[in-house]
Amino acid sequence: MGRTRSSSPTISEVAAAAGVGRATAARTLGGYGYVSDEMRERVLASAEALGYRANQLARSVSTGVSHTIGVVVADISNPFFGGVVRGVSEIASARGFDALVISTYEHFEDEIAAMNVLVDKRVDGIILSSAACDPASTAHLQLARERGIPLVLLDRLIPGIELDAVVIDNRTAARTATGELIAAGHARIGFVWGPPTPARPSFRRDLVDAAARNLWSDGERLMGYLDALDDSGLPLDPDLVAVGEKTEAHTYDEVMRMLALADPPTAFFCTETDALTGTLHALRDSGVAIPSQASVIGFDDSSWAAVMEPPLTMVEQPMLDLGRRAAELLLGRIDGDGDGEEAPTQLELPARLIQRASVAPPR
Amino acid sequence: MGRTRSSSPTISEVAAAAGVGRATAARTLGGYGYVSDEMRERVLASAEALGYRANQLARSVSTGVSHTIGVVVADISNPFFGGVVRGVSEIASARGFDALVISTYEHFEDEIAAMNVLVDKRVDGIILSSAACDPASTAHLQLARERGIPLVLLDRLIPGIELDAVVIDNRTAARTATGELIAAGHARIGFVWGPPTPARPSFRRDLVDAAARNLWSDGERLMGYLDALDDSGLPLDPDLVAVGEKTEAHTYDEVMRMLALADPPTAFFCTETDALTGTLHALRDSGVAIPSQASVIGFDDSSWAAVMEPPLTMVEQPMLDLGRRAAELLLGRIDGDGDGEEAPTQLELPARLIQRASVAPPR
Repeated sequence: MGRTRSSSPTISEVAAAAGVGRATAARTLGGYGYVSDEMRERVLASAEALGYRANQLARSVSTGVSHTIGVVVADISNPFFGGVVRGVSEIASARGFDALVISTYEHFEDEIAAMNVLVDKRVDGIILSSAACDPASTAHLQLARERGIPLVLLDRLIPGIELDAVVIDNRTAARTATGELIAAGHARIGFVWGPPTPARPSFRRDLVDAAARNLWSDGERLMGYLDALDDSGLPLDPDLVAVGEKTEAHTYDEVMRMLALADPPTAFFCTETDALTGTLHALRDSGVAIPSQASVIGFDDSSWAAVMEPPLTMVEQPMLDLGRRAAELLLGRIDGDGDGEEAPTQLELPARLIQRASVAPPR
Repeated sequence: MGRTRSSSPTISEVAAAAGVGRATAARTLGGYGYVSDEMRERVLASAEALGYRANQLARSVSTGVSHTIGVVVADISNPFFGGVVRGVSEIASARGFDALVISTYEHFEDEIAAMNVLVDKRVDGIILSSAACDPASTAHLQLARERGIPLVLLDRLIPGIELDAVVIDNRTAARTATGELIAAGHARIGFVWGPPTPARPSFRRDLVDAAARNLWSDGERLMGYLDALDDSGLPLDPDLVAVGEKTEAHTYDEVMRMLALADPPTAFFCTETDALTGTLHALRDSGVAIPSQASVIGFDDSSWAAVMEPPLTMVEQPMLDLGRRAAELLLGRIDGDGDGEEAPTQLELPARLIQRASVAPPR
């Protein structure tokens, strides 16, 4: 690391070295206005030789665009969000934008802090997978709007709030997956996981109410499960719905509880990766074979699911497309599509059931 | 979203509402200097009532600390980096810092752009998992040092560069895993994956040279594999080393090629998650049973590896600890530990071999 000069050369120095006027150098290095190809090449060659780099902060004040977008997601260690961020980055990068990602790990206070940081860092737009469940918890979104920063919700709507959004059709996906188990002959289907209430609701209405007070996407998957039961005239047994903390360890405990019931489930629908691995560990530790003793369908297809024994039937979410479409929508808003007064755009992408070998008739 | 005021109240307005002097309000809201508990509470209550929020950008100019760190990683959709970032965020969050994460997807130009963005956004420090392989490619690191921004390398050293760093002892981990296969009786062990050279090196020296020109961590794992062969006096067969593009799809092709050799490998050591899933798909499609027909050891233990049939023997990397230690080291530098002149701190964390059921003697 031999270079020791402590400051970047000025635009004027670059212009002098390139033998062009300062305005030409400024246009080239600032990325605005017309510059001939020949001039551009000379300026860029001099800039590189001198080690020039733009003061992007100053530039963002003058042009109003810093070429960064913020992405706030629940948990970057969840492969689902890893895939979504990859899709966002792909589109952003192709347009010369950098994506700054903040993980909130489902802590609402961290989401508020993340929004504040991104607004303060003057990003040009924000993609947010929010933990907010009602309009009363959206003051931090209002802040971005006040500053004129476009905002796109990702993966999760906030009931009562109309904003640009790109989500999955979770309800239809859950209805299809549960229907697949019912079509195979199952009537007692464990739903892993339900709302994070500490106490198990005894009635359908209480379960639906609890889901409505929590994450939109989780609630939609529960509604799809109920839709499928209704389609076939099957009753809901609240004992077959996992509730409480959304972790692999707690899922394990809930599935062990269900397996100990007098009339245990013969199939499981697992709505997250951690719910699936927790269920698989519980079934293995209980000596329950898949699919001869219990059928399983998971959510969020991964490469490893196809090499399990048996290969797992899975709901595949279009993670990359979800991220790409959100980035395209956001960059369109940054470009000035619409005047901010028209109705928000809400896209709902379909999920696909991939049939493999983990579903069979009950014994 | 009822609030419509377009700007935050000033510090003077907060001071007036709290009945304190402007300096007291400024110290409280800026987080510097002494303020009594009682005064602090009055200021914070007024600030909250008025909807005051600090202009952190202005504050960072005056105090020099913006309470954000940048994290540049290769690929956030890789569960390894997901876990590492979780560890970083945990420590940063506890200290009131937000972590802004940028993924480079192993594109070196994107790494340079990411460093520039973070420097321009005036983060207080940067944790970097670099794709740079030699000192000639580190001008973008020099930039951070010129600006006085502490930098900690994560997971990957850059040979010839002395910087603070936290890494895994990859060489010992690979030597242990390969030794486990040799101890079970294997002499022909596929190494997935080797250096990303398009042509397969025919000689050990060429292979080692190619590894040295590429990622440090990958090279260390190859050296550990060679160490284990040497320990037992086994020859290297370059045909058993996967080379080329580091993707699951290409791994699949390389393993299929090895299985078609006249004397195919009886065991595989897979040094990444994608290398492991690619290998598992190739073995399944070829009807090769684990462990009776081929033994397998993977790198980066995941919950699903323990519920495979058979459960997989894996190298477990301490991902969370890696992130935590890097964040602690960086925050220490931001606090001013050392004067920047002493020798860098380089921590090497051990990885652990978790023995399950995917290793058996060759047929």
